[in-house]
Amino acid sequence: MSGRSDIKKQLRFLVHDHKSLAGKIFDFSVQALVLISIISFTVETLPGLSPEAKSWLHKIEIVTVAIFSLEYLLRLYVEDKKLKFIFSFFGLVDFLAILPFYLSIGIDLRSIRAVRMVRLVRLFKLMRYSKALRIYADAFYQIKEELVVFLFMTLFLLYFSAVGIYYFEHPAQPDKFQSIFHSLWWALATLTTVGYGDIYPITVGGKIFTFFMLMIGLGIVAVPAGLISAALVEVNRKANDK
Amino acid sequence: MSGRSDIKKQLRFLVHDHKSLAGKIFDFSVQALVLISIISFTVETLPGLSPEAKSWLHKIEIVTVAIFSLEYLLRLYVEDKKLKFIFSFFGLVDFLAILPFYLSIGIDLRSIRAVRMVRLVRLFKLMRYSKALRIYADAFYQIKEELVVFLFMTLFLLYFSAVGIYYFEHPAQPDKFQSIFHSLWWALATLTTVGYGDIYPITVGGKIFTFFMLMIGLGIVAVPAGLISAALVEVNRKANDK
Amino acid sequence: MSGRSDIKKQLRFLVHDHKSLAGKIFDFSVQALVLISIISFTVETLPGLSPEAKSWLHKIEIVTVAIFSLEYLLRLYVEDKKLKFIFSFFGLVDFLAILPFYLSIGIDLRSIRAVRMVRLVRLFKLMRYSKALRIYADAFYQIKEELVVFLFMTLFLLYFSAVGIYYFEHPAQPDKFQSIFHSLWWALATLTTVGYGDIYPITVGGKIFTFFMLMIGLGIVAVPAGLISAALVEVNRKANDK
Amino acid sequence: MSGRSDIKKQLRFLVHDHKSLAGKIFDFSVQALVLISIISFTVETLPGLSPEAKSWLHKIEIVTVAIFSLEYLLRLYVEDKKLKFIFSFFGLVDFLAILPFYLSIGIDLRSIRAVRMVRLVRLFKLMRYSKALRIYADAFYQIKEELVVFLFMTLFLLYFSAVGIYYFEHPAQPDKFQSIFHSLWWALATLTTVGYGDIYPITVGGKIFTFFMLMIGLGIVAVPAGLISAALVEVNRKANDK
Repeated sequence: MSGRSDIKKQLRFLVHDHKSLAGKIFDFSVQALVLISIISFTVETLPGLSPEAKSWLHKIEIVTVAIFSLEYLLRLYVEDKKLKFIFSFFGLVDFLAILPFYLSIGIDLRSIRAVRMVRLVRLFKLMRYSKALRIYADAFYQIKEELVVFLFMTLFLLYFSAVGIYYFEHPAQPDKFQSIFHSLWWALATLTTVGYGDIYPITVGGKIFTFFMLMIGLGIVAVPAGLISAALVEVNRKANDK
Repeated sequence: MSGRSDIKKQLRFLVHDHKSLAGKIFDFSVQALVLISIISFTVETLPGLSPEAKSWLHKIEIVTVAIFSLEYLLRLYVEDKKLKFIFSFFGLVDFLAILPFYLSIGIDLRSIRAVRMVRLVRLFKLMRYSKALRIYADAFYQIKEELVVFLFMTLFLLYFSAVGIYYFEHPAQPDKFQSIFHSLWWALATLTTVGYGDIYPITVGGKIFTFFMLMIGLGIVAVPAGLISAALVEVNRKANDK
Repeated sequence: MSGRSDIKKQLRFLVHDHKSLAGKIFDFSVQALVLISIISFTVETLPGLSPEAKSWLHKIEIVTVAIFSLEYLLRLYVEDKKLKFIFSFFGLVDFLAILPFYLSIGIDLRSIRAVRMVRLVRLFKLMRYSKALRIYADAFYQIKEELVVFLFMTLFLLYFSAVGIYYFEHPAQPDKFQSIFHSLWWALATLTTVGYGDIYPITVGGKIFTFFMLMIGLGIVAVPAGLISAALVEVNRKANDK
Repeated sequence: MSGRSDIKKQLRFLVHDHKSLAGKIFDFSVQALVLISIISFTVETLPGLSPEAKSWLHKIEIVTVAIFSLEYLLRLYVEDKKLKFIFSFFGLVDFLAILPFYLSIGIDLRSIRAVRMVRLVRLFKLMRYSKALRIYADAFYQIKEELVVFLFMTLFLLYFSAVGIYYFEHPAQPDKFQSIFHSLWWALATLTTVGYGDIYPITVGGKIFTFFMLMIGLGIVAVPAGLISAALVEVNRKANDK
C-alpha cells in the first residue's frame, strides 16, 4: 500500500511539477505531441494526398491518441478529487482531445467534419504551460466592463449601418443588398476596414452614408485594442514597481 | 382622488425605479420587446418570405405597437410636466417608435421605406438602461474639441487627396475618376484603409501621390480612437481612485 | 495724412482683430467665400455640366477672385513690412489663390489642369483662423524625431517587402510584379492594410513572406498614430494643469 | 613602424569618428554609395531596359563593389581583433554586400536571383549611422515578452480562424478553401484587415464565424502597435526627465 502511494506521489510530482528534469521532459513531450497532432490534422485537409501519406497520418493519429489517453488516465489517477478534475476546464479539454477517435471506431465519421474538428481542442492543452496568459487574463478581466460596452456599441453600429445601407442600396443593387442580413456582412467588412470588395455601395446616398458611418465607426471599433494595450501597460508597470 | 394619486405614484415608481422586482420586470419586458421588434423588422427584409411568415411578422408588429403605445401613455400619465416629456429625447423616441404603424393604417406605406425605417428608433429605447453609456458620454465630452479638430483635419485630408488623385487619374481613368466627387469616394476607402478595390490609381503619379497621402493620413485618421481610449482610461482611473 | 493714417489703423484693426463685430464679419466673409469657391471648384469637375451651370461657375469665380484680390491688397496695405508679408506663408497663399485666374486671362489654361489645381491653396486661407491647429502643431513638433524615425523604418520596410515579394512572385506573375517599383505598390497597399486587391501574392512562398512582413509591419506602421495620440493627450494634460 | 602605426591610427579615426570633417565625409560617402547602389539594384528589375542602361548599371555596380571592398579591407585593417570584426553583425553585412559580385565573376549568376537579392544587405550598412535605432531597440527589448505573447496569440487566432472557416466554407467553395493552409491565407488577410478580396466566405455560417473572429481578432492584432507606442513614450519621458 505504501509503495503504491509512493508511486502515486511520484507520478503526481511528474504531472504537476514543471521544474524537475522529469517534469520538464513530461511537459515538453505533451507539447511536442500536441504540435505534431495539429500539423498532422492540418496536412490531412490537403487535397490530393497519396494513400501512403494518408496511412502515415492515420498512424500518427493512433499513436497520438494512445499517448493522450495514457496522459488522461495518469492525470485522473493522481488527482484525489476525480470528479472535480473530469469537469474542470483542462479535464474536459483532455477528454475531448481523444473522444473523436474513439467515437470513429464504431461509426465511420470521416464525413462528419464537425466531430473531426473537435480534435482542435488539443491546442488548448498548450495553455496549461503559459504563465503569461494567466497574467494577461487579469488585464482583460480588469477592463471586462469597458470591452462589453464597446462590443454592444459595435453591435449597435453594425446593425444601424446595415439598416441604413439597405435603405440606400437595396433598390440599386437588390441582388447584393438583398436584406438587412446581407447588409450586415457589408457593415462588418466595412467598419473593420477589411473591405473584401465583394459588396460595396454604388449610389451617392449610400456612399455619403458610408462616410458618416466610417467617421463614427473608426473611433469606436479601434478602441478595444487601445484599452487592452493600456491595461497591459498598467499591469507591467505594477509588476515593475514590485 | 387620493386613490388615483396613489396609483399614479405606484405607476411612476414602476416606470422610474430600476431596482424593485416590479421595476425590473417592467424594464426587462420593454427591452425584450425592443429586441423582438428589431429582429422582426430585420427578418421582414428577407426576400422570398412565405405569406404565413409575413402574417406572423405583422401580428408581432401589432402586439409590439400596442404595448409600446400603452408604455408611452403610461410614461406620459405619470409625468407631471407632460410637454417637457413629449419633447424630451426619450419622449420623442417613444413617440417615433409607434408613429409609423399608425400612419400606415390610413395609407399603404409598404412602398415608402423611409417611414418604415423610422421604426429603427426603437433601438434607442434601450439606451435608457445603459449606465455605462452616460459615463462614456462624459469621456467623449471631455475630448469633444480634439475630436472636432481631427474631424476637420480628416475632411481636409480627404478633400485634398480627392483633388490630387483626380488630377493624376482622371486622364487615365475618366470613367472611374469622373469628378472630384467620385475621387472623394476613393479617398474615403483608401484613407480609412477599407480598400474595396472598386477604384484605385493605375498611373505612376497617382500611386506615388497615394503613398504620400497614406503616410500622412494613417497618422491622422487613427488618432481619434487613440484619444477616446486615453479618455476612457483616464475616466476609469479617476473612478478607481474614488 | 493723419486721416489716412487713421483709416489704415482701422483697416489693420479690421484685418487683424478677430473679436470686434467688424472683424468677425470680415473673417466670416473670407471663410464663407473660401468654401463657396472650393465647392464651385469641385462642381466644375462634374462631367456633363450644362452651359448655364458653367457660366454660373465662371461668374462665381470672377466675383471670388475680385474679392480675394481686394483682400490681398488690403492686407498688403495695412502691413508696414510689405516684403515680409509677400513672402510669408499666408502672403504666398493669398497670392497663389488669385494668380491662376489672372494667368488664364492671357492664355487659355483650361487644359493645363496643374494651374487650375493651384486654386486649391485657397483652402489654406482657412488655417489663419484655427487656434487648435497651432496647439497641435506643437504636439507634432515635440515628436518630430520619432515620426521621422518611423517614416524611415516604414520606408525601409516597404522597400524590403517589395524586394522580397518581387523575388517570390515575379516568376509566377511577371505581368503584375513586373519590377520592384510595381512591387512597392503592393507593399504600400498591404502594409497600410488598404488591400485594394489589384495585386496580391499567389505563390506559397509569397504568402508566407507576406505573413512575416505583416507581423512586423503592423507593429511599425500603426505606431505614429499612437505617438500622436499620446503627444496630444500630454499637451491637453499640461493645458488642464494650468 | 611608428609611421605605419600612425597611419593606422589616423585611418581608425577616419572610420570610427563621426564628428571630424574627414569622418563626416567618409560616412556620407558610404551612405550615398549605399543609396546609389540600392537605386541601381531597383532600376535593374525594370522590364525592357535598353542595353546602354544595362551597361551603365553594370558600371555603377563595379565601382560600388570596388569602393565597398576597399572599405571592408580598411575596416579590417584598423581593427585589432580581426576575427571578432569578421564575425560581428556589421562585419558580415559588409562582407555579404560585396560577395555576390565576386561569386558572379566565375559563374553566370544572372538567373540565380537569390544570390542577387543578397546585395540588399547593403541597406543594413546604413544602420551603423542611426542613433535613434539603438534607443528604440531598447524600447522594443523592454516589451519583448509581451510582443512574443501577442505573436503567439495571433498565431493561435490565425490557425483557429483558418480551421473554422475551412469547416464552413470548404463544402461551398472547395476550389478557394482547398485546405487549412489555403484558409490560413484568408485568415491572415482578414484579421490584419488587409482584405484583398481574392478569398472570402459566402456561406451564412462562414460569415457569422468571420464576425466572431474579427470581434476577438481586432482586439488582439492591433495591441502590439499600442504596446510599442507606449514603450516609446516611456523611453522619451525618461530621456526628458534626465
